[in-house]
Amino acid sequence: MRPYVIINAAMSADGKISTKEHRQTKISGDQDFARVDRLRADCDAVMVGIGTILADDSSLRLKNPDLIAERTAAGKTEQPMRVVIDSRARMPPDGDMFKKGTGQRVIFVAETAPPDRVAALAEKATVISAGTDKVDLTLVLDKLGEMGVKKLMVEGGATLLWSFTSQKLFDEIRIYVGALIIGGTDAPTFVDGSGFTRAEGFTRLALKNVEKIDDGLLITWHKKEE
Amino acid sequence: MRPYVIINAAMSADGKISTKEHRQTKISGDQDFARVDRLRADCDAVMVGIGTILADDSSLRLKNPDLIAERTAAGKTEQPMRVVIDSRARMPPDGDMFKKGTGQRVIFVAETAPPDRVAALAEKATVISAGTDKVDLTLVLDKLGEMGVKKLMVEGGATLLWSFTSQKLFDEIRIYVGALIIGGTDAPTFVDGSGFTRAEGFTRLALKNVEKIDDGLLITWHKKEE
Ligand SMILES: NC(=O)c1ccc[n+]([C@@H]2O[C@H](COP(=O)([O-])OP(=O)(O)OC[C@H]3O[C@@H](n4cnc5c(N)ncnc54)[C@H](OP(=O)(O)O)[C@@H]3O)[C@@H](O)[C@H]2O)c1
Ligand SMILES: NC(=O)c1ccc[n+]([C@@H]2O[C@H](COP(=O)([O-])OP(=O)(O)OC[C@H]3O[C@@H](n4cnc5c(N)ncnc54)[C@H](OP(=O)(O)O)[C@@H]3O)[C@@H](O)[C@H]2O)c1
Repeated sequence: MRPYVIINAAMSADGKISTKEHRQTKISGDQDFARVDRLRADCDAVMVGIGTILADDSSLRLKNPDLIAERTAAGKTEQPMRVVIDSRARMPPDGDMFKKGTGQRVIFVAETAPPDRVAALAEKATVISAGTDKVDLTLVLDKLGEMGVKKLMVEGGATLLWSFTSQKLFDEIRIYVGALIIGGTDAPTFVDGSGFTRAEGFTRLALKNVEKIDDGLLITWHKKEE
Repeated sequence: MRPYVIINAAMSADGKISTKEHRQTKISGDQDFARVDRLRADCDAVMVGIGTILADDSSLRLKNPDLIAERTAAGKTEQPMRVVIDSRARMPPDGDMFKKGTGQRVIFVAETAPPDRVAALAEKATVISAGTDKVDLTLVLDKLGEMGVKKLMVEGGATLLWSFTSQKLFDEIRIYVGALIIGGTDAPTFVDGSGFTRAEGFTRLALKNVEKIDDGLLITWHKKEE
């Protein structure tokens, strides 16, 4: 069975998730960081696209020691599984994700990924081939389900979220809206990719909740059932 | 004195104000349309950038007859003043804004705007020169203040809102967030333009209110005082 998919990200009041130079940007505050860590702790796996790793060298790990202790007390691994979607195996073998924290790392690549880079990554992570030229997310979700992942958190970035939202491969969206304007035609937004051209295509949402956190808002949407 | 400036727009849950083809898009619903009309009726002037006119042929007029009657009963003109920011006088002289509704239309152009086009527009509207190559919004606000505009509604689009927000020439932002994903690297977002590159530059906001309207949310931000 496919995992329950929660998309979680933070955007400015004008929908940007970083600056046009892809500089990582503080959009929320301490209260929201704690919420995100709690959500990571509650998931079996957390995922990003390779663009996010290359821009931010994210370690994707759970940081709060209390949450780690809570997981182990419940018989879980310290860290949720950390997953990167990376067709061409561009993941740097010296990335922070390999250096920090314990537990399984999984890199999904395409069948056409360069074998030498795949081999280098295979020393550090579980490398799984899914899709011909580009990673196929339906195969990824099936595979993660087989591996026991029941709840998956997808943290971005903009291009990966286009695939998840346009293919309607999600259950919930939790989007933090920060009290700032970043602006910029070229800044990554919450969802980029090719974009819909017609109203019939738009992915429709149902509003579930809104709450004030730090100086901004956390909005929870569910996928609207057709 | 400069007018009190309210920026009002509608965006998708991922920050887009139309599709990548600049196709006008229904983001909100009837309740929100009524709110926007009410806001127009309460303002002395409404403004857009020339990009919005060229994409949508917006008439910018107040439509609800009750609101029009209310304005005239209060001794006001039927319609608020309609203002376009248009450095090169590209406003089409047969635009809907000239055909529909009564009252004053004002086009702000740059000093370098082609004189023939300025002359053609001057037959339909009050044409005011403000700025050398590009319309200077501080001059525009001063001029509108002199003309008796106390409350100004700025309706977009993305490029004009970059100027207003980056130059901090606004008091409030009212942004409707619709229950849909539009996506697209090239779709206009709530604020485009050149964009900030550093956190020190970001325009900071203060959250004033959030309410559910139709299937989405109306978020009200104020400019954060430094
Ligand atoms: N504010 C936040 O919450 C937040 C969270 C995360 C990221 N970010 C920001 O997002 C930016 C990075 O976003 P991004 O759009 O450049 O990168 P991304 O979405 O993280 O990664 C996109 C890449 O994933 C690969 N990919 C493989 N299969 C895919 C598929 N089926 N669908 C989509 N992508 C697939 C593609 O490259 P290959 O085909 O070569 O593999 C693609 O270029 C950074 O600036 C980062 O700071 C912000
Ligand atoms: N969802 C909504 O609420 C909403 C509302 C409005 C518009 N829209 C959408 O927005 C899109 C249009 O946005 P846009 O960005 O193309 O156009 P825009 O912001 O309406 O107009 C931008 C143009 O205004 C002129 N301008 C003159 N002085 C300026 C100054 N100081 N600062 C900024 N601009 C100045 C510039 O052209 P010149 O220098 O040549 O004059 C500029 O290209 C359309 O797709 C429309 O549907 C959506």
